[in-house]
Parts: sequence; C-alpha cells; structure tokens
Amino acid sequence: MTPLFMPVATQGTVKAMRPEQVMELGFRTVISNAYHLSQRPGVRTVESAGGLHNFMGWNGPIITDSGGFQILSLGADVKITVDGAKFRSHIDGGSIFLSPEISMDVQEKLGADVIMTLDECLPYPAGRDEVKRSIELNIGWAARCRKAHKSERQALFGIVQGGMYSDLRITCARELVDLDFPGYALGGFSVGEPRDMTLELAGDTVGELPGDSIRYLMGVGDPVTILEAIALGIDMFDSVLPTRIARNGSALVGVKRVNLRNSCFKDDERPLDEDCGCYTCRNFSRSYLRHLVQAKEILGFHLLTVHNLARIADLMFKARSAVELGTFEAMLNEYRQLEQSE
Amino acid sequence: MTPLFMPVATQGTVKAMRPEQVMELGFRTVISNAYHLSQRPGVRTVESAGGLHNFMGWNGPIITDSGGFQILSLGADVKITVDGAKFRSHIDGGSIFLSPEISMDVQEKLGADVIMTLDECLPYPAGRDEVKRSIELNIGWAARCRKAHKSERQALFGIVQGGMYSDLRITCARELVDLDFPGYALGGFSVGEPRDMTLELAGDTVGELPGDSIRYLMGVGDPVTILEAIALGIDMFDSVLPTRIARNGSALVGVKRVNLRNSCFKDDERPLDEDCGCYTCRNFSRSYLRHLVQAKEILGFHLLTVHNLARIADLMFKARSAVELGTFEAMLNEYRQLEQSE
Repeated sequence: MTPLFMPVATQGTVKAMRPEQVMELGFRTVISNAYHLSQRPGVRTVESAGGLHNFMGWNGPIITDSGGFQILSLGADVKITVDGAKFRSHIDGGSIFLSPEISMDVQEKLGADVIMTLDECLPYPAGRDEVKRSIELNIGWAARCRKAHKSERQALFGIVQGGMYSDLRITCARELVDLDFPGYALGGFSVGEPRDMTLELAGDTVGELPGDSIRYLMGVGDPVTILEAIALGIDMFDSVLPTRIARNGSALVGVKRVNLRNSCFKDDERPLDEDCGCYTCRNFSRSYLRHLVQAKEILGFHLLTVHNLARIADLMFKARSAVELGTFEAMLNEYRQLEQSE
Repeated sequence: MTPLFMPVATQGTVKAMRPEQVMELGFRTVISNAYHLSQRPGVRTVESAGGLHNFMGWNGPIITDSGGFQILSLGADVKITVDGAKFRSHIDGGSIFLSPEISMDVQEKLGADVIMTLDECLPYPAGRDEVKRSIELNIGWAARCRKAHKSERQALFGIVQGGMYSDLRITCARELVDLDFPGYALGGFSVGEPRDMTLELAGDTVGELPGDSIRYLMGVGDPVTILEAIALGIDMFDSVLPTRIARNGSALVGVKRVNLRNSCFKDDERPLDEDCGCYTCRNFSRSYLRHLVQAKEILGFHLLTVHNLARIADLMFKARSAVELGTFEAMLNEYRQLEQSE
C-alpha cells in the first residue's frame, strides 16, 4: 500500500505510543535507527530477543536507517575516511568505527525487513566541491554495502545524496541504479532548506529511479510537502514531525500547527479538530490538553502524538484513495488552498 | 467496594495513563489535589468545563485532597495563622491565602464527590508542643470547614492529625467525631516514619472512629503495609508509590521493588512477573523494559505504571475476596512471609 508514511521508532518505540495503538491508526511500517539501537541496548541484546520485531513487539514491517545522519548530528570527534566513519558515542563517549560492511552486519543482526546503505550526510548548506567528494564516497560505500549484504530476508535500499545540486543528485542516482537496489531513498532533506528546493531536487532525481523500485523521501512530514512529493512519484515517507511537535505541545489542525500553550485555549472546550475522529478528539477538550501540556503531564504528550499521527494516517489514506480514483490532482489543489487560506 | 485503593491524579491525570486504562485495571475512584488544580489550570477553567469529572474524562468517583500537605512541601514563605495559610505559589510565585472557608469553596467548585477539610500537616519529626498546637488549629479549621460546607452532592471527610503521638491523635479523632463526618482520614503518614509506627498509631486511632464511617489511611501504598492496615479496620488508601516508582524505573515484583536499570535485566527475556496478567507482562520482556527506562522513553514509564497499578489492583481484589470469604488472616500471613523470604 503506497504511498505510505512511516512513524519513527528511533530507539525501538514510536515515542509515547503502544505498538498496537500505532497499528490501530492504520500504520503498518515503522523506521528504527541502527545507530541508536547498536549503542543502546546493543546489537546482542536485540539479537538475543529474536530480533527487533520481537524486542519491540511490532508485527509489521520495520526499516532500519543506517544512521549516517545521526553520526554527523550526534557523534563527537567524527572522522570520515574512505574506510568508514570513526566517532565517539553520544551515550557513553566510547570510540566507534562504522564501515559499510559493519553497518550491513549490524543491520542484519537487528533483523529489520528493509535496511539502508551507510551514507555520509553533509550539513546544509554544503559547497559544491564538498558535496562532489561526498557523493563519490557514498557511491563507493553503497557498492560495498551491496556486496556485503547477504540476507535474502532483508531488502537493501540505496540512499541518493548530492546536497542541493540537482546534477550531482542525478549522477548519484544513476550510479546507485547501476548497483540495482529494490528501493532508493532520497536523503539529506529536511535539514533547513526551503520546501521548493526539496521538491525541485526530488522531482529532478525521481525520474532517474526505475518505476518498479520503491522511491522514498526521507525526513519529510509536512502534510502539503508530502502531497506535492506524491505528485512527483514518491512512494514512501518518514518524519519525526508528528511525534516531535506533539512533545513540544503542538498539534496538526487542518494543515497547520497550533501550539496548545497559547492562552487562547485555556477555556476552549472544543476538540482539537472538529473533523477528526481520533481517540484524543473524541474524548478531550483543547482546554484539558493545554493543561496537560502546561503541567508537562505524559498523558498530554501521548494524546497529542495520537492526534498528530491520526492526521497523517488520514492524509495518507485519502492520498491512496485519490490516486486509485484518479482524483489526486483535485486533492492536492484542495490542500494547497487550505494552506493558503488558514 | 472496600477496602479500596485510589490511584493519585494530582493534576487531573493518573500520570502516564489514559483514564479508561485505569478503569480497566479495576479502579473506580481516584484522588486529585485541590492545591495543584486551583493553581493550574485554575478553578474557573475546571468549573467552566463542567467540573473535574468532565475536564479529565473520569466517570467514577473523585476525591480532592485540600492540599494541606502540599502547602508545606511546595509552598514558599508559608505563614500559618488561625485564620488560614498564607504562602507563595510554586508555579508562579503569586501570593495565595487559603482558609477553611476558601478551601471548601474551591473544592465545591472543582466538583469532586468527596472533599477534604483543610489541615496543617507538620514535617516529621515534630515536637509534642508543636503537634499539640497544630491539632488545636486543625480541629478549629475542621469545624469551620464543616460549617462552610454546603453542597449536598459532596461528602466532606475530616483529617486526623497528631504527629507520632498516640494520645494527641486520639484527642484529635474524638473532636472530629463530635463534628460528625461521614469519613475520616488519618493524615501525616508516609513522611519518613517506620512502618511499625504507622500501624501502631493507625491502630490506636481507628477504634475512635465510628464503624459506619469510612476510614482512610492517606499516603500508604506499600503492599504489606496496606494489608496490615486493612487488618486494623482501614477501608481506603491512596499513594503515589505505584506510579512514582514506575517513573523512577522500578516495578513491583511479588511484594518487593526491582529497579529495571539493574544490568542483570539486560538480556532477561522473561516478563516482569510470571504470575501477572497485565498488558505489560503479556507483551514485553524485562530486557525491553530496561531499554526503555535507560533511554528515558515515555512508553517505559507507561508500561511500568500499568504493571505497578495492576499489582495493587490485584492486591485489593484479593483482599476484598479474602475479607468476604473469611480468609484474610491467612492472606496477610502469606504476604508477611513473602516479604521475609524474598
């Protein structure tokens, strides 16, 4: 069922949710992070539990991201060479070396259904020469991952990088297609670039990827950006947005975010969203949710997470129906207007 | 249904739980705190939501504690006179005056089913003269609460204080009985005193309270202490213990607490408690729970709260059955031995 959105379960849990609550919202696939899990609880602990599905009690498909993005954002003293990435753990300061081969071994042991190549993900903005060097490194790492990947039970996806340079992304995409992956991720987005840039680069790259492969835009969770990307041919999304803004006290209402801390909600007895049928909207008022957020009560973070994931689930459900019925263009226009009008 | 245990919903939520999850565990009554709620979100917000039941989505009975204990533990610059308590809020530093009459008004507006008299709760240990002065104040305040209490929809319980002095507690109990309340709480416990002292004082006092009144031991949540107190004739309990230790990463296993942070649980694939049928024990391993606690994941605090509340629910269910079947003495002995043997 595509297009699909994957809630993020970085550390083996979609934050503040029971697994079956995520399922009940209509999600089947989640994405975890090999960088985080290999440091805590450690690969051996997950392996001895019979793999990640058993460990976290998730019966649907799981993807693990290799953690290239996290090495640069969380690791200390990061040194990247052709061999691999050397850095110190953000958990215990221990020295870690990650090569394409080690990443494949780690992800195979964690046992997800789809695993990702190890990639270097540059900060934004990065200069053209730096990006050029980086995609050459990434293509080499992808080839080594492809070679080291043995498990037939797991699919391996390549990750297209190339910064904000369309031609470099196209070069990278073509090289990865030559390596013949069943799916391709577009990485390095949602790092601070404007939406138009994301969409232009995704649009330029997606045409290079085979129509029968899975095309996955990493890190994009804004409702209208998701729809625009579906129009470009993207099949798969993931983002911390719905769960992270919930923990910041914000909710998706329509296609916008509202911050429950705003005093206008103090005595607002309405549900978050009159048109939403989620558990939170069926049972609680904005006033109560605001109180929970102000008091930093765990229930508040849970209830906002439920609502935000429900809104994204609903969006993806409508998008899939619209694609099937041939009404997707109309849906996209409606959401564009909604965003303008609110 | 007594004896009963009330989960604590200080700020209008049993921490980390949906209301119906608390109900499903078998609890019908929760206790909130008028001190906390009157400061945040404020009495008017709860009132305009149609009262606390509507506000927090709880369909069973609610008690509000007056917050005498919280004034001393949380308030700043506390000044207590015969008139009432003057202090500054721990939320916004604002100056607050609380008299018996104001407390009745606040609790009436919050709309709980049972409300409590305003009391002064001394720190432990307190000298005899100080305690003597304090119970005189408390008796005066209780009489004023009794007079000011108008609502027929709400029951008002008195609170017996008297520190660790049996004769002063008995004096206080007798004076309160003269005021004729439908229920009496024994307050000022779980402040650091040993269990034997709690039970001796409770035992000395409970006989002074009419057999047809509700007798409520405040703040006691340790399983064996609960059973010992039931044997003395106590009907009602509340404690933050099951929910608070959960957020510290600890679980009730048998009658003891285990801390999931302990490295012995790293690869322990067993449920928390082989004999427990709660959601947590049916679905997750100690190894996964330990990981969630180490990673400070909200799901970990939720799952431990579910388990700990399930253990207390089970204890109270067994105690009620044993009282009915006349086997309570045997149950108590079994738990005493369990505690010794583990």
